[in-house]
Amino acid sequence: MKLLRVGKVGAERPALLDEAGVLRDLSGLVPDVDGALLADDAALARVRAAAAAGDLPALDATELRVGPPVARIGKVVCIGLNYHDHARETGAATPEEPIIFMKAPDTVVGPDDTVLVPRGSEKTDWEVELAVVIGRTARYLETDEQALAAVAGYAVAHDVSERAFQIERGGQWDKGKNCETFNPLGPWLVTADEVPDPQALGVRLWVNGELKQDGTTAEQIFPVAEVVRYVSQFMTLYPGDVINTGTPAGVAMGQPEPKPYLRAGDVVELEIDGLGHQRQELRSA
Amino acid sequence: MKLLRVGKVGAERPALLDEAGVLRDLSGLVPDVDGALLADDAALARVRAAAAAGDLPALDATELRVGPPVARIGKVVCIGLNYHDHARETGAATPEEPIIFMKAPDTVVGPDDTVLVPRGSEKTDWEVELAVVIGRTARYLETDEQALAAVAGYAVAHDVSERAFQIERGGQWDKGKNCETFNPLGPWLVTADEVPDPQALGVRLWVNGELKQDGTTAEQIFPVAEVVRYVSQFMTLYPGDVINTGTPAGVAMGQPEPKPYLRAGDVVELEIDGLGHQRQELRSA
Repeated sequence: MKLLRVGKVGAERPALLDEAGVLRDLSGLVPDVDGALLADDAALARVRAAAAAGDLPALDATELRVGPPVARIGKVVCIGLNYHDHARETGAATPEEPIIFMKAPDTVVGPDDTVLVPRGSEKTDWEVELAVVIGRTARYLETDEQALAAVAGYAVAHDVSERAFQIERGGQWDKGKNCETFNPLGPWLVTADEVPDPQALGVRLWVNGELKQDGTTAEQIFPVAEVVRYVSQFMTLYPGDVINTGTPAGVAMGQPEPKPYLRAGDVVELEIDGLGHQRQELRSA
Repeated sequence: MKLLRVGKVGAERPALLDEAGVLRDLSGLVPDVDGALLADDAALARVRAAAAAGDLPALDATELRVGPPVARIGKVVCIGLNYHDHARETGAATPEEPIIFMKAPDTVVGPDDTVLVPRGSEKTDWEVELAVVIGRTARYLETDEQALAAVAGYAVAHDVSERAFQIERGGQWDKGKNCETFNPLGPWLVTADEVPDPQALGVRLWVNGELKQDGTTAEQIFPVAEVVRYVSQFMTLYPGDVINTGTPAGVAMGQPEPKPYLRAGDVVELEIDGLGHQRQELRSA
């Protein structure tokens, strides 16, 4: 299933995109798309059955804003330098184990919402990423099978990054990762049953129509199952948590000088095979 | 006012500790102590008036668990190496600007709840910290006055840290800061009007009855107002967000070998002048 949330900021309603591409209203069936729903097999089964039976009312998608596909995200865990080609372009060594950093859930916006270039920023950069949405509490997992069983589904994430804040301002990467609007997510949460191999997805990003990132999750150093298993050794993952699994080569930081960092007026588009398309305009904060 | 939340995990009710030391039930007056309440001057004034009028029912404090004093925390922002003496003991240079890292809100537990030593941990360490609770949306603040006006109040925080995970496992500190139960908070949120000078508070921590940290917020490299102003340049702070403002000298990592890292069975106690006392037993995860 493709689950999503549509409507104004803070007033989104749960919806489903059916196999014919028709937007269906889920608000009569479930209160929202959130950790509680993703952990509730019976509720998900009711949604699936209603969709199959044609029982869900259609929504007029015209001019309807799409919000983040998960409400009340508990935390956003990010994996750094998780593609061989991206590690090379940044000049970093290939990590021996996953690098973990954090984004606050309040950085998450809809897939087509405005992204703000922070005040004082000269190095706002793009990163298209496969996001994993958690559906089961995950704690000290031992196997890849347990890890994949904890995954509710997948989505497109834009891990917007300010490189000077991240690297040149004393210490930890989080300083360049938590600016407001820095994590567009969506349009859909595609349930895991419809993504049989998360390591075979094309991942692309354009800036002003020019293809900048053109990778595949096959190039991930640590695949999804290993990432989820690994993260669960250091923190407990809860339903509704999100993991951004890293970005392939092609970010601005990896280009020759002058590096083409984002500026107000730029348009970024992102897509991952089967997970949909994002489009953001950049504006000044 | 001293605001708190009492009851079982996930079912805490809002309460107030009055000037006579009597616990008063706020659940008839406000739904919870959270960002919404802290941003609502009228609701806070009603609480204050009811307390002054003696209109609040007393609660029997016997065997009542104290939870974290803020519900639905949006993010926990942490400042690293923010005391001169702690920077020295870790061998780090004094930071030229604040170091920022993040803890997930799901690490927050009550002040006397059990703290779990993670599996595989050999270097679980303590850090008593002054926590700042935000009461106004704070974005690109310009002055110390604006910064202090955004502060709802203060609390004791324990920024539990696993040093091997933090420093020896590839990259970013967050890996050693986000283990479950790693952020005891409370017992109270003391409103800012009752903390006239946040830079004049004694900060102490004991392990198994032995005083390990005995500092004062006067030694902070970046004081509270500067921290809040600075953080607001890199991320938007919302009501109910928490900032842990760093720890003074005396952590296990700063001691001679063999360093006395925490183990199951240890008892840690923490206090800050006017903000109350915490006591946690350590157990194995």
